Amino acid sequence: MRLVRPSWSGLVRGRQHQHSQYHRRFLLTTASRGSNGEREEQQHSKWSSPGSRSEQLLYAACWAGGLTLGYHWLSDRNNLVLLEGQRVPSEEELEATARQWHVTIRKELPNYRAEQVEQHNCAEKRIWVTYGLGVYDVTDFADNHPGGDKILMAAGSAIDPFWAIYQQHNTLEVLELLEGFRIGNLEGQVVTNADDELGSPWSQEPQRHALLKPASKRPFNAEPPIGLLAEQFYTPNDLFYVRNHLPVPVINPEDYELEIEGGAKETTLTLEGIKALPKHSVTAAIMCGGNRRSEMTKVKAVKGLSWGAGAVGNAKWSGARLCDVLREQGVQPDESKHVIFEGADLDPTSHPYGASIPLAKALDPRGDVILAYEMNDEPLSRDHGFPIRVIVPGTVGARNVKWLTRIVVADKESDSHWQQNDYKGFSPSTDWDTVDFSKSDAIQAMPVTSAICTPQPGARVKVDDDEGHITVRGYAWSGGGRKIVRVDLTNDEGVSWHVAELEQEEIPDGRHYGWSLWTARLPVSEAQRKAGDVEIWAKAVDSAYNVQPEKFEHIWNLRGVLANAYHKVKVKIV
Amino acid sequence: MRLVRPSWSGLVRGRQHQHSQYHRRFLLTTASRGSNGEREEQQHSKWSSPGSRSEQLLYAACWAGGLTLGYHWLSDRNNLVLLEGQRVPSEEELEATARQWHVTIRKELPNYRAEQVEQHNCAEKRIWVTYGLGVYDVTDFADNHPGGDKILMAAGSAIDPFWAIYQQHNTLEVLELLEGFRIGNLEGQVVTNADDELGSPWSQEPQRHALLKPASKRPFNAEPPIGLLAEQFYTPNDLFYVRNHLPVPVINPEDYELEIEGGAKETTLTLEGIKALPKHSVTAAIMCGGNRRSEMTKVKAVKGLSWGAGAVGNAKWSGARLCDVLREQGVQPDESKHVIFEGADLDPTSHPYGASIPLAKALDPRGDVILAYEMNDEPLSRDHGFPIRVIVPGTVGARNVKWLTRIVVADKESDSHWQQNDYKGFSPSTDWDTVDFSKSDAIQAMPVTSAICTPQPGARVKVDDDEGHITVRGYAWSGGGRKIVRVDLTNDEGVSWHVAELEQEEIPDGRHYGWSLWTARLPVSEAQRKAGDVEIWAKAVDSAYNVQPEKFEHIWNLRGVLANAYHKVKVKIV
Repeated sequence: MRLVRPSWSGLVRGRQHQHSQYHRRFLLTTASRGSNGEREEQQHSKWSSPGSRSEQLLYAACWAGGLTLGYHWLSDRNNLVLLEGQRVPSEEELEATARQWHVTIRKELPNYRAEQVEQHNCAEKRIWVTYGLGVYDVTDFADNHPGGDKILMAAGSAIDPFWAIYQQHNTLEVLELLEGFRIGNLEGQVVTNADDELGSPWSQEPQRHALLKPASKRPFNAEPPIGLLAEQFYTPNDLFYVRNHLPVPVINPEDYELEIEGGAKETTLTLEGIKALPKHSVTAAIMCGGNRRSEMTKVKAVKGLSWGAGAVGNAKWSGARLCDVLREQGVQPDESKHVIFEGADLDPTSHPYGASIPLAKALDPRGDVILAYEMNDEPLSRDHGFPIRVIVPGTVGARNVKWLTRIVVADKESDSHWQQNDYKGFSPSTDWDTVDFSKSDAIQAMPVTSAICTPQPGARVKVDDDEGHITVRGYAWSGGGRKIVRVDLTNDEGVSWHVAELEQEEIPDGRHYGWSLWTARLPVSEAQRKAGDVEIWAKAVDSAYNVQPEKFEHIWNLRGVLANAYHKVKVKIV
Repeated sequence: MRLVRPSWSGLVRGRQHQHSQYHRRFLLTTASRGSNGEREEQQHSKWSSPGSRSEQLLYAACWAGGLTLGYHWLSDRNNLVLLEGQRVPSEEELEATARQWHVTIRKELPNYRAEQVEQHNCAEKRIWVTYGLGVYDVTDFADNHPGGDKILMAAGSAIDPFWAIYQQHNTLEVLELLEGFRIGNLEGQVVTNADDELGSPWSQEPQRHALLKPASKRPFNAEPPIGLLAEQFYTPNDLFYVRNHLPVPVINPEDYELEIEGGAKETTLTLEGIKALPKHSVTAAIMCGGNRRSEMTKVKAVKGLSWGAGAVGNAKWSGARLCDVLREQGVQPDESKHVIFEGADLDPTSHPYGASIPLAKALDPRGDVILAYEMNDEPLSRDHGFPIRVIVPGTVGARNVKWLTRIVVADKESDSHWQQNDYKGFSPSTDWDTVDFSKSDAIQAMPVTSAICTPQPGARVKVDDDEGHITVRGYAWSGGGRKIVRVDLTNDEGVSWHVAELEQEEIPDGRHYGWSLWTARLPVSEAQRKAGDVEIWAKAVDSAYNVQPEKFEHIWNLRGVLANAYHKVKVKIV
């Protein structure tokens, strides 16, 4: 098989690399490079705009109320954008001009660097956002934002990618409103990426969605904004978190081959050969072992990428069943054996990424392990393992090997770094001086967890005046096919708990690999309204009635994995 | 099939029953009635006596040190037990006499009722025990007891059944030492059990081991002393906790029949027919859904038997595989179906005890569901389901139906009370006014848990002078075949955690149904020695890295099931 594997030679020579700026793209419509190599416009219609009619009405109401700045600007608009002496433009011309404002430098305003904007990411420090080249202070508008606290997802950064999703912003009125909050210009920065030179291992990384917030850029690891995560049961492919351990390989599907060893015979399957096998689909959430690590880090520093609660996504995966493939190979059940997976991604010493799972899981038809070539009915993207990724439902993301090129049925686990010396749990008192990775079991099935997606930390939450409730929404999941049976919420530190409504597939327990979304309405007391600050806790229960631990102190581990304590979010009641 | 089922007619007629006294048996050797109806001497040799040689030496040392009371009594022994004017007896005669002391009334001492003795169950209230008819205050001896805090297991009650197990007490020296602590005589009580009359549903209950501490007597529910539980990997049959929901049926093995319905055909199997099938053995812990309920009750009252941490036992079960039986019936895999089990035990309305499990569990060879006729290589006893009990490894005890008489493959779960309106988990805020049992899932697999068996609460624990450690031992288990991968202990509220040594079967994860015993050595600081009081916490981690919750407040539920918070034991350092 011929694979174009990005070369590490640049790194090995110790070359200094300048990192590209993924997090700041000024495109009204973003684009991703599809698996077939052609540029494809994203299907933004996949993201519904809940209550868009009422939102528009609210916008109109805000407008009619005459938000001072916006109004002031409207009445003075010509001074801002037209050259002196020009005739007053027609409405059509004006609209065309308005659509250029955010990419026009306003010389009378100061310039700010992206790092300066980033500081202003909450009401206390003022909420700044950028749109194109414009810098805006939207603090005084945030409480009136029809989309609620979603505006905070962009605090300190660009609203462009959000507006690409929430198309209801694409009106003249909204553009006018925004420009009223303008306080400056974003200092432009033309990045010449030295890595684009052929020969760099990073030269052929795929395009990514602008909303994926990188925890690291090389290798690329990024999660979507938590506020978007619970909007849809199936996470849109281009917003699905990306966890790469190495540069993304370039694989020509015509050349793709999958070697299978360790059965009665050795086989090499082509992509077409895999697609010719019976097609099987499974809904499975994939979660990084380090999801929610950033919360654990607050107890004590850990080693690892600082993931928020977005290193998880839920998709429908389709492909050939591994149990069918292995049985065809003559592999017999043997609970002492393992199945080793290798990817086409290579480390600097030319070793591939690798991991393994127990053979029993691989052979169990109810284990639903598949050689997936589709994700939500689309071909896998390069970031998600094109052309073949093994999906091991219910099992930590690290075993769901991407760019799969080799399967070996073996007496022992994979000897890869990621199986042996990573993705393992330890006692809170084990530190780097005393750790012995050989003493701990590699993570396979993941423990029960949950997260609050909205409201977000620091959000100003409106109480439903009629009934005095606030609405909370999030996800819950457990590994090993265990269904979520209940999610409990409290906003009074556990004095009273409220059971959430669950949104989940009708799949029997033991094979329930998809996540559950949930919504709860929590009563807000008079005292809480007066105090203003409320902390919301979420905890989930799975079908084995396993529960989340209350806090991180006693599950802390030096790698920061398995961070499944109660999710706690502080908000302000308004 | 003809079964002798105990009749409820007595109860239905509203007759007053006098409860028999299970907890006070004065037999040096206890006996159980075996399944074949013959009286069998117990195999006490199954209980090893750890360090018996050194214990004997310690006894000798105590003796040589001249524990005042014991010495005083020795030098004055004739006055106590011999009639005035008799000749001084030979050593042989003296020993024979000494063996009668505990069944001899000493008229110069006061008489006490059992209820009075029960009050004196800790050092603060003085530690009283009974042996035969003797009442003894062993408070001043407890700290020097060579068996450590095990002596506390008998505090306020009889030592007879313990001495039957720990045969090293059966020496003249020990008898002499004990008699030195004598303070009175136990008031005799001859109980005539009206229920022994034929016709009472309770008239044919089996004999039970004197050490089984009843949580209720009718139906009989009892657990062994927690201090004994972690002594052996396989719990001795007669000390295995008993959880009966109804009177124990009397079944003649010749007449036994098991009906099987719901497959392609209907079948009736005899006991010999089941034994003729391939024999399969599995090590499985069985745990009551209410194990450790007494700890949860401290948060707020719950409905249910007040179990300690002993409503669990570990055994090797042997019998026919249910998957073999069902396949022979022509039952096809169907994940929407259930397997209903019915027992020969009847409620007052003549409905049998019943429960169900998912068909997928029943058909999975790795599920290891068996129609068991042996427990630890012996025929099942009547209390444990003679002649056939279905063993559903990894699943709450309530689904392991005893005296199995009927199996039905059905579209729905069992409609029994115990499946529908019991053994379910709820949110802490659900109470009896708001509970809707139909909204919650029946417990199947159990969550991860652990318990400290020694030292026991309130024990006075000696620090190992050489290294300054105390030794802690207990059990850990998780449902669903999930192996225990780690047990953490702390004696400083989680500031430092210590990983226990595990003792467990070498069985692959997913099929690891037996419990794990563990031992940890915890360092005791100078400050802790001075303070005297130490609280030890245990928490276990299973192979899905699920952990125990820290406390009961947030897992409290109105039925008091699933009580798997950290186990916390306060001891005194001496």
